[in-house]
Amino acid sequence: MTGYTATVTVRLKRGVLDPEAETTKRALERLGFDLEDLRSADRFEVDLQADDVEEAADRAEEMAERLLANPTIHDYDVAVAER
Amino acid sequence: MTGYTATVTVRLKRGVLDPEAETTKRALERLGFDLEDLRSADRFEVDLQADDVEEAADRAEEMAERLLANPTIHDYDVAVAER
Repeated sequence: MTGYTATVTVRLKRGVLDPEAETTKRALERLGFDLEDLRSADRFEVDLQADDVEEAADRAEEMAERLLANPTIHDYDVAVAER
Repeated sequence: MTGYTATVTVRLKRGVLDPEAETTKRALERLGFDLEDLRSADRFEVDLQADDVEEAADRAEEMAERLLANPTIHDYDVAVAER
């Protein structure tokens, strides 16, 4: 068993409204920043033990499917690194 | 001017309590997942126009300092990619 950190990034699908990101964008603009767009996402860093990187990625993907992401409105990606 | 996407990742400093991450970890464990630790972070993807990658990174860093992160409790990092 080896220690891995799986990073799961969960973002809203294109077309799903994101009022928090819109508010953050406008707040930055009020501070004088010039930006074209802002998207927000949640990032989960999961430390786990697995036999290999594929197993770690599979388990992190299952965590995303079952709890971390809502497949109706979210896309997610998983990246795994050895600790 | 070139289009860049600056990704700002904002995470709690080590030692700052994260009850949301703790709750998520326990929910995963109740579903039968085996994990050692879970940390959550916010990720902001900012599209902006800048003369070069350094200017884009500087502006994204200033956004983090002034609004996206709270330096008392957060660390952040900035990564910039051309669009």
